[in-house]
Amino acid sequence: MTRQFHDHALSADALDQIFLEARTYNGWLDKPVTDDQMRAIWDLARMGPTSANMLPARIVWCKSDEAKKRLAELSSEGNRDKIVQAPVTAIIGYDIDFHEELPWLFPHTDAKSWFEGDEDGRKSAAFRNGSLQGAYFIIAARALGLDTGPMSGFDNAKVDAEFFADDPKVKSNFICSVGYGDASTIFERSPRPDFDKFNTIV
Amino acid sequence: MTRQFHDHALSADALDQIFLEARTYNGWLDKPVTDDQMRAIWDLARMGPTSANMLPARIVWCKSDEAKKRLAELSSEGNRDKIVQAPVTAIIGYDIDFHEELPWLFPHTDAKSWFEGDEDGRKSAAFRNGSLQGAYFIIAARALGLDTGPMSGFDNAKVDAEFFADDPKVKSNFICSVGYGDASTIFERSPRPDFDKFNTIV
Repeated sequence: MTRQFHDHALSADALDQIFLEARTYNGWLDKPVTDDQMRAIWDLARMGPTSANMLPARIVWCKSDEAKKRLAELSSEGNRDKIVQAPVTAIIGYDIDFHEELPWLFPHTDAKSWFEGDEDGRKSAAFRNGSLQGAYFIIAARALGLDTGPMSGFDNAKVDAEFFADDPKVKSNFICSVGYGDASTIFERSPRPDFDKFNTIV
Repeated sequence: MTRQFHDHALSADALDQIFLEARTYNGWLDKPVTDDQMRAIWDLARMGPTSANMLPARIVWCKSDEAKKRLAELSSEGNRDKIVQAPVTAIIGYDIDFHEELPWLFPHTDAKSWFEGDEDGRKSAAFRNGSLQGAYFIIAARALGLDTGPMSGFDNAKVDAEFFADDPKVKSNFICSVGYGDASTIFERSPRPDFDKFNTIV
């Protein structure tokens, strides 16, 4: 029997930690992120829902100076220092051939057959669900007391060739530094729209 | 000064609530979701990071029986009952012309000009970041003591024509029921991959 939490909101502190006070950092304290912490982020993030449990995200964690430098060289100038200075920057990719894994990820039906021969459908599904997993990754890191710095400014094709050459059906989505944010490096909070601006109830 | 939570993990209960014990529901208790709850979900989810604060998600909350029925008729047979029986099912779309809002959402630079004349780039950015917002939506609902049932099985083009006719640059992404999940309607938990299956540290 699963636990339920009906009408129980997280504490104000917890909501601050994962949403309301969490910020995107541009610089990092000189304090490492351990392999165990990376594993703990994955162990939470993997539990978030994806369509047919497809879990298309494939992650390369650039932790060595050499790997961060390779990634930085393929990124926009404004992102280079953010990458090399971070304890780790993850490349969050998605596998267009995720359906090959469905026989064990979604074992109760033949979901693989839904996607065979439909590469366009797989591209959309992998991009959508891999992006969901990217957001779970950000929230999971925050929930564990780490900060994040997600970035889109890099050359996707070159990053794919450099980091996913062995898996040509994996495409980079976005990259995300993880560490202990340096509070002096955040920008002023950008405005957030009220409900009525982008929501309708019908 | 922003609050930081370095090395402070959420409580085990809180991690259970948003990730480890939360489940996708297929049926719902007969208990409504109020407009204030929908607003509270948005007020949390909108704080999650998007590239250049673009916030491309546009949400139509189908709450009336009539709206849920219209959506159900455009959805796969297996999803129809899940939609009409839920207190509310949100259509999470994304606006390909999100850049029109950047002068006030990202006021410190001329980010609108980065995207003008590049509709393909806007489509990718809107899909990626709108999907991140969809995941923030799911986690926000859970954090407030609600359950979710995200679904991809519907006719996107028909839903766009039916619900976003006034905004032809808004495209449906996925739909998500929100309510109090009926524990008897969940499936067995599908397997989740170990870190080493889909992660590499370099």
